[in-house]
Amino acid sequence: MELKTLPVALVEELQEQLGRDKVIVEVSELEMTSRTCIPYGETPAAAVYPISAEQVQIVVRLANAFNVPIWPVSTGKNWGYGEKTACYPGGITMILERMTRIWEVNEELGYAVIEPGVTYKQLNDHLKQKHPALWSDSAGTTQFASVLGNALDKGRGLTPYANHFECLCGLDVVLPNGELLETGGGPQSNNNVRHTYKLGVGPSIEGLFAQSNLGIVVKSGIWLMPAPECFDWAAFEYTTSDEKFGAFIDDLRQLVFRGALRSHPHLANDFAMMCIVSQYPFDLLDGARCLSERAMETWRKQHGIARWTFGCGLYGSPAEVRFQKQAIKRVLGRYGRIQFVGAAIEDNWHGRLLRQVAPLVNRMLGKSDAAIEALVPAINLFRGIPTDHFVRQVYFKSHQQKPVDDIDPARDQCGLLWIGPVVPFASRHVMHALTLAKDIFARHECDFFVEIIVESPRSIILLIGVFYARNDPADAVRARAWYNESRDAFLKNGYPPYRVTTMSMPGSLDRNPVARDFLRTIKNAVDPLNLVAPGRYGISAQTHQDTASQQAAKLEQ
Amino acid sequence: MELKTLPVALVEELQEQLGRDKVIVEVSELEMTSRTCIPYGETPAAAVYPISAEQVQIVVRLANAFNVPIWPVSTGKNWGYGEKTACYPGGITMILERMTRIWEVNEELGYAVIEPGVTYKQLNDHLKQKHPALWSDSAGTTQFASVLGNALDKGRGLTPYANHFECLCGLDVVLPNGELLETGGGPQSNNNVRHTYKLGVGPSIEGLFAQSNLGIVVKSGIWLMPAPECFDWAAFEYTTSDEKFGAFIDDLRQLVFRGALRSHPHLANDFAMMCIVSQYPFDLLDGARCLSERAMETWRKQHGIARWTFGCGLYGSPAEVRFQKQAIKRVLGRYGRIQFVGAAIEDNWHGRLLRQVAPLVNRMLGKSDAAIEALVPAINLFRGIPTDHFVRQVYFKSHQQKPVDDIDPARDQCGLLWIGPVVPFASRHVMHALTLAKDIFARHECDFFVEIIVESPRSIILLIGVFYARNDPADAVRARAWYNESRDAFLKNGYPPYRVTTMSMPGSLDRNPVARDFLRTIKNAVDPLNLVAPGRYGISAQTHQDTASQQAAKLEQ
Repeated sequence: MELKTLPVALVEELQEQLGRDKVIVEVSELEMTSRTCIPYGETPAAAVYPISAEQVQIVVRLANAFNVPIWPVSTGKNWGYGEKTACYPGGITMILERMTRIWEVNEELGYAVIEPGVTYKQLNDHLKQKHPALWSDSAGTTQFASVLGNALDKGRGLTPYANHFECLCGLDVVLPNGELLETGGGPQSNNNVRHTYKLGVGPSIEGLFAQSNLGIVVKSGIWLMPAPECFDWAAFEYTTSDEKFGAFIDDLRQLVFRGALRSHPHLANDFAMMCIVSQYPFDLLDGARCLSERAMETWRKQHGIARWTFGCGLYGSPAEVRFQKQAIKRVLGRYGRIQFVGAAIEDNWHGRLLRQVAPLVNRMLGKSDAAIEALVPAINLFRGIPTDHFVRQVYFKSHQQKPVDDIDPARDQCGLLWIGPVVPFASRHVMHALTLAKDIFARHECDFFVEIIVESPRSIILLIGVFYARNDPADAVRARAWYNESRDAFLKNGYPPYRVTTMSMPGSLDRNPVARDFLRTIKNAVDPLNLVAPGRYGISAQTHQDTASQQAAKLEQ
Repeated sequence: MELKTLPVALVEELQEQLGRDKVIVEVSELEMTSRTCIPYGETPAAAVYPISAEQVQIVVRLANAFNVPIWPVSTGKNWGYGEKTACYPGGITMILERMTRIWEVNEELGYAVIEPGVTYKQLNDHLKQKHPALWSDSAGTTQFASVLGNALDKGRGLTPYANHFECLCGLDVVLPNGELLETGGGPQSNNNVRHTYKLGVGPSIEGLFAQSNLGIVVKSGIWLMPAPECFDWAAFEYTTSDEKFGAFIDDLRQLVFRGALRSHPHLANDFAMMCIVSQYPFDLLDGARCLSERAMETWRKQHGIARWTFGCGLYGSPAEVRFQKQAIKRVLGRYGRIQFVGAAIEDNWHGRLLRQVAPLVNRMLGKSDAAIEALVPAINLFRGIPTDHFVRQVYFKSHQQKPVDDIDPARDQCGLLWIGPVVPFASRHVMHALTLAKDIFARHECDFFVEIIVESPRSIILLIGVFYARNDPADAVRARAWYNESRDAFLKNGYPPYRVTTMSMPGSLDRNPVARDFLRTIKNAVDPLNLVAPGRYGISAQTHQDTASQQAAKLEQ
């Protein structure tokens, strides 16, 4: 298997079958396509852009015939997790961004059926125009990210439908042998509950296609939320002493358990908020590589930012929203300031008034204008309306100014690296995980960026990340060192990540060898030639495991 | 592979390793153990009762050494679906009912960790005594059924936690090679979120063990509901004309979508209710094999039973329960009578008064005492308190009297057969499915038993069943004919079953050959000797097929 260049016959066949404009082999284009924010990247031998399930099947069959691996991505905008790079050089990268059909929206039963190229923006625009009774969720990432891609990677949103993978129902999957599989087990092409009932008949296999290399998802149903009768939005700022943070975490869990908090807020620390409202204050560094506690305090006060901040949506009948407001106010009022400002997005006198008054109030509270500008996009996120307002933060250290649009941090070589360990939603665990994280940030002289993502009443995701200079090799090494130590520390402490970056895939299941080998056995059976995303999450067909572990050794250096 | 008798050396080894009392080979005992309610049954060559995961591993390793298949069941009380019978004669039946440990209850994070022999009664009793802050769900079946067994078979309950499989999180599975697998992909024996985060790292494999023969689940986490601040219960009777039933279904869906109806009620037709409150009225048959419309009406009126009836639980803060009550009353009041009588189970003056007044009111409404006796157990079911009150209905035709306790319809040879097609929760589909079902019941001269189970806002399960004379071959043939025609008709119309009986397993995935073959490929890889429940849901290892050449042939097409 020669990965780095493709046989001429294969390229010709791909061009013939897909059309010349859908097959890229030009080196500079490939380099641009496979740029990453993580400190790792490989260039493929070709990139293909199929426009239909049939074209995906053609590519898979050709890959079989020529024994060339395929790395499929949807739009590849998972910035900070790996973007479009494979975990090996060469081969074919399959980009599904031109598969943009919305096949169906079922208003009665609350779902859409979409292809992997459908973006948050496209889905939301479509619903707003044609089916305003339904709301989609959206992620904090760019509005041009793939809805399916994010879901298949177990990405998260903010509304009550934040668990994106759990909202998928009824997948069409091109298997490594080129066949098209309909999940659910019910009658093929004639299953009325494909998109309404998740468990299907017999073993449920949909989970197998999450973070997976067992097939290429080319279409799926996705559940949508009925537009609530009533919506409001709460902004919370933690203003009390640090010692109470554990009690606050436990009280927050209770609110989620009781259904008083139905959205999935991200509790951001001061640095995470500052990325949004400011540029990096190099002047405060004072010769150090990261901001001191004192510098952080100065900077935070300049912008009127609290130690911890979150926004959350309230949904339901007026009576239910009232109950949620009361419960949130009663419980969280003990820890800080709460403002209910959902009306700010309304197109009426109340909304206009709030939009005029909010800046004044916020200025009185010491907030900068940037904090106020974030308000409307933040509220809208909880209504499923995507925005590029927040993802711009990625530029805040590496560029003089954040761009207003055309945001592409991979192209623009912003360095960015995420880890998201999952932690039980109990103060004992959350405090322990925060301490672990903080110590490692300090040891590597990185600024402490953390968001506590409310995953469910039972778990949180501790989203931690660093921004670094992508094209400075020394800084990249430092980012990697921070990453490797954090990853190991969280695993050793029993907090596995909710997703991993491409560069850490090879060993990602090594601490659970039985599960890893079980999946490798399955991979070997359904993809004996190891053609679809070999090595993704450390899973390769057994025949190729030697190569995979060589690769692992190389990647972990 | 000789299934019908076991090698002496194997029996001796099993007795040696498990203890003599845990290995049954006596024919009459095996006959008793494997009795069924469905018109099908096979007797195994032995039954084993392991008491621990280690003993399950020992049996699996011996089965490998001697090449003998194992049919695992939890308690085997899935009456009307197959009980403990395998879909082939002989082999070892593994009954997990003596694995009754509750390993942990985590009150903070709302879960328990249990073994397959833990029953609804055991779990509920344990919670009531030690952790009253948590409620379990319960199924309509006997309180002595296995919590895990029901969940793994995709069984359903009644509370907001009714989707039993979805509530499992973190399985321990003995694989066909005898290894112990921890799902989740996180660090083995050191994963703090095993029971709090379902998706894990890499492909999610838990679904693979539902209705499955890919492993034997020996332990699992199960999510529990926080005891709500406030509880009430609504009894609804549909009293308006049949023409409005479609509109009623659509309105009911809206209530579920809006969160006004949070439990998962079973909407029972008149015959289904009559099974509970009465004995079969042979005197009304008038020479026919099933009751005429007129006979049904007479009988229904004797007991004051409506055409359709359901009960549902209300959960939340007082404000939320108030909202639910108002919404239910406003919407369903258009179609019939609603009574909120949750207080009847309270141990205070209000409860006592209600318990005294309810019989009088109900008698005024023309209800028999039996209908009133069902009230408290019905309400309790929605609080997770299991009961044998309803499962006694199974005896209502075959026996003179329903037993009061020691209920075991398989042992007592009650004939019973269920089908549960899943149908989109939209009037068009529900009405179509009801008509389909009714015609087939009529054609086979069976009494029309149906419950519409609210599965989710998007699907219902149409639970239909017949009671027949288990030991009358002619009646068994009739039941089977009804079953086969119904099953086919629903599949042809695109409504797959939520679970299938053991007798219909072989072809159960035949209408989705790609999914079936994908699962067979996996089975072949993880269980090449075809040892764990071969044939379950039509999945067997293809022991003598060259999958690679088969794959090649497919690709050449």
